[in-house]
Amino acid sequence: MADKDKLVSRSEDFNEWYNSVVLRADMADYGPVRGTMIVKPYGWTLWENIQQALDQRFKATGVQNAGFPMFIPMSFLQKEAKHVEGFAPELAVVTHGGGQELGEPIVVRPTSETIIGHTYANWIQSYRDLPLLLNLWNSVVRWELRTKLFLRTLEFYWQEGHTAHATAVEAAERTRMMLDVYADFAINEAAVPVIRGEKSELERFAGANQTLTIEAMMGDGKALQSGTSHNLGQNFAKAFDIQYLDPNNELQYAWTTSWGLSTRFVGAIIMTHGDDNGLILPPRLAPYQVVIVPIYRKDAEKTAVLTAAQRIQQELTDAGIRVKMDDRDNLTPGYKFNDWELRGVPARIEIGPRDIEKNSVALARRDVPGRDGKQFVSQDGLAATVQALLVDIQASLLTRATQFRDENTHDVTNYDEFKTAVQTGFARVWWDGSNQEELKVKEETKATIRCFPLEQPEGSGTCFYTGRPANKIAIFGRAY
Amino acid sequence: MADKDKLVSRSEDFNEWYNSVVLRADMADYGPVRGTMIVKPYGWTLWENIQQALDQRFKATGVQNAGFPMFIPMSFLQKEAKHVEGFAPELAVVTHGGGQELGEPIVVRPTSETIIGHTYANWIQSYRDLPLLLNLWNSVVRWELRTKLFLRTLEFYWQEGHTAHATAVEAAERTRMMLDVYADFAINEAAVPVIRGEKSELERFAGANQTLTIEAMMGDGKALQSGTSHNLGQNFAKAFDIQYLDPNNELQYAWTTSWGLSTRFVGAIIMTHGDDNGLILPPRLAPYQVVIVPIYRKDAEKTAVLTAAQRIQQELTDAGIRVKMDDRDNLTPGYKFNDWELRGVPARIEIGPRDIEKNSVALARRDVPGRDGKQFVSQDGLAATVQALLVDIQASLLTRATQFRDENTHDVTNYDEFKTAVQTGFARVWWDGSNQEELKVKEETKATIRCFPLEQPEGSGTCFYTGRPANKIAIFGRAY
Repeated sequence: MADKDKLVSRSEDFNEWYNSVVLRADMADYGPVRGTMIVKPYGWTLWENIQQALDQRFKATGVQNAGFPMFIPMSFLQKEAKHVEGFAPELAVVTHGGGQELGEPIVVRPTSETIIGHTYANWIQSYRDLPLLLNLWNSVVRWELRTKLFLRTLEFYWQEGHTAHATAVEAAERTRMMLDVYADFAINEAAVPVIRGEKSELERFAGANQTLTIEAMMGDGKALQSGTSHNLGQNFAKAFDIQYLDPNNELQYAWTTSWGLSTRFVGAIIMTHGDDNGLILPPRLAPYQVVIVPIYRKDAEKTAVLTAAQRIQQELTDAGIRVKMDDRDNLTPGYKFNDWELRGVPARIEIGPRDIEKNSVALARRDVPGRDGKQFVSQDGLAATVQALLVDIQASLLTRATQFRDENTHDVTNYDEFKTAVQTGFARVWWDGSNQEELKVKEETKATIRCFPLEQPEGSGTCFYTGRPANKIAIFGRAY
Repeated sequence: MADKDKLVSRSEDFNEWYNSVVLRADMADYGPVRGTMIVKPYGWTLWENIQQALDQRFKATGVQNAGFPMFIPMSFLQKEAKHVEGFAPELAVVTHGGGQELGEPIVVRPTSETIIGHTYANWIQSYRDLPLLLNLWNSVVRWELRTKLFLRTLEFYWQEGHTAHATAVEAAERTRMMLDVYADFAINEAAVPVIRGEKSELERFAGANQTLTIEAMMGDGKALQSGTSHNLGQNFAKAFDIQYLDPNNELQYAWTTSWGLSTRFVGAIIMTHGDDNGLILPPRLAPYQVVIVPIYRKDAEKTAVLTAAQRIQQELTDAGIRVKMDDRDNLTPGYKFNDWELRGVPARIEIGPRDIEKNSVALARRDVPGRDGKQFVSQDGLAATVQALLVDIQASLLTRATQFRDENTHDVTNYDEFKTAVQTGFARVWWDGSNQEELKVKEETKATIRCFPLEQPEGSGTCFYTGRPANKIAIFGRAY
């Protein structure tokens, strides 16, 4: 809940702004075990809306949900060499169960490729069992010490998709298809304009041949990797012996993919759209799309105002709008306005005795502060008016975020320009560096290759760092 | 998938029947860590339908969802004496994280009362913060050695509700309200006729003042506890210091409740409705309500049949019916019939060349085997015909299960009759025994007090076991 202290501004301390907003908007809290997070109902409902928007997209591509155990034998992790190298340092290990020390330690899944690999090897016998397209909604554990609510927590919620295919082409198509699903979701549901691209070898998922990513720019110009889709080639199929008989009765290794999007995306929404007054939630995902604040002074006014407010609430609810009525009687309207602004509800309806007389309400949009964002509208046809406003807010948020990103993305051709660009945004460059050179740039500037965008220009250029001829464009940025 | 071996009959070996059906119907599989379960898409979709039916009921009573960490400091468990006594033997303990031994061991939640207690103590300050009504959809871990898919697994999926109230009365009302929600769900969605009742002191949840339960009778006459609702009194409030300022500015302890229903309920559905041919799923929860099996011999027939089948699939889908088209071309219709019978799809549509000529289809209901359950109906208005059939199947399943339960529930007045009754069903008795006597009965007969039904007869009687006057009726049974 809002208290009287003003939020620190984003330009003053973006990090502090973020932490305060998350806590004060009742999105999340810290758990008792260091690094863990409690997602409060307001944050959880946002996550549920994200889940729903993704889940229907997954199912439309033929994916089914399943449930896999959180416990994985330690030995499974060791079967894929690069995978264990990537995840071993972050594991939580169960050594005792039911009062006994275990023969083999068990890990809490950091991700499920290994247990999926083991299981798919049992389930897949013939080409008729392919493709196998599963998704899991669960939580995973990675032992992080520098935690930040939603962005990096010891346990986080996500979905992990795992598919197996008969051919390399199908696996590549699926990897790309799920990236496109993520991009469609991010842009059209969350109003977060993401760049689709491919990760460099250094930034790839541990065990993947290719990692595709959607990258977003946050309000401080830093990058947030917001969802990834991995082509695992035959690496896990060979490590776990996922083989099938093809139509010629010959044994073949399957080709697998995995792809995930997590509660980190809640952080993306907060840091893309928020302003100095708090959150601004995109209408399509907001837990409440509209808050109604009834305004009255005397008891005589109260009944009439509440009756009208409840009628409006019902009308909007019947029209499929998610409405919150704030009838708390120990708080002033001004306090409530600040509170719901902080919590980012896209639209606010104020109704008082004079509005009732005039058959109107005041309708304020969260994305335009102050008087400019407020209009008086008729109570007749209010549901349609509100719906149109929500559509407009959704579109405006996307436009604004896209403009911000584009204004803070700079085409640079030398290292000095590069260093300036990544202070406040992205650098878009021709790149022909080695892994060592990429690491060097990171060391010197904290900027990493966020991706090689899928949309590449024609032709070629000169690598800004090595001066060598280069045939692809990379986007660099400092990342969360 | 069905294979050619016939299922063992339920009367021959109910336990073996259950295990085979779960595996062969593709509901679940064993995980690699002993005691863990993989829920396959068919079983998971059933669970998702259960979740949806419960979730909307919870929300209608003002409950909101949230997400709490799976990791709890070991010390939390020790704060409520009875709670730790109940759960300590079943804990999974994490001793290492991120490559280091932990200062304090962490447990994977066996249930969340303790972390909820700790957190509510922070969140609740004033009577205005009450009631606090949260629910978590998650999984919990209890180190079980004798596991059985869905019924008892090391990790299982469930929801756990946790509420805090200002008064004892409100907490008691909430405990009962959630029991009624469970009963309404069980009866009207799952067609599982449950008995609402109160647990004896011995069978109470560890740390509760009162445990209410819904108890169901399985197809072998054994009982399955299918959902519980606990009044925790001030036990956890005192252990975790959940205090609030009342309107007179005096500090009071809150009153709390918790309530849960798990994937165990999938087992209840299987064992309530299944027959010797496999599962029978209640239409309201079934992943597929109808399967369409196109029948053709020659290629010339194939196109016409598949076209008609697809049109019907579309019509039913548009009417909101969940339809599966089985167009696998390497299997015979007979194989498919058996397969979908095993998997318990409530209704089957067969369509072949002669049906197309006659503008009809064959419509078979899963709950009535053979020719009696099959009729030829017009393709005109088929969606309405199918919908009416599904309603009828749902009702018939409930009637049949209720009759079975009532026929196998015996009012008995002495121990000999009791021993006979609990071999095959429930014994309904006057009871005035002590905890010691209750344990003795369990030792001698394996039967336990399933509950004291909420609906008690007028008057009093004589305890079947002690011969003392008794003023309440108990239901005894052997339980899963």
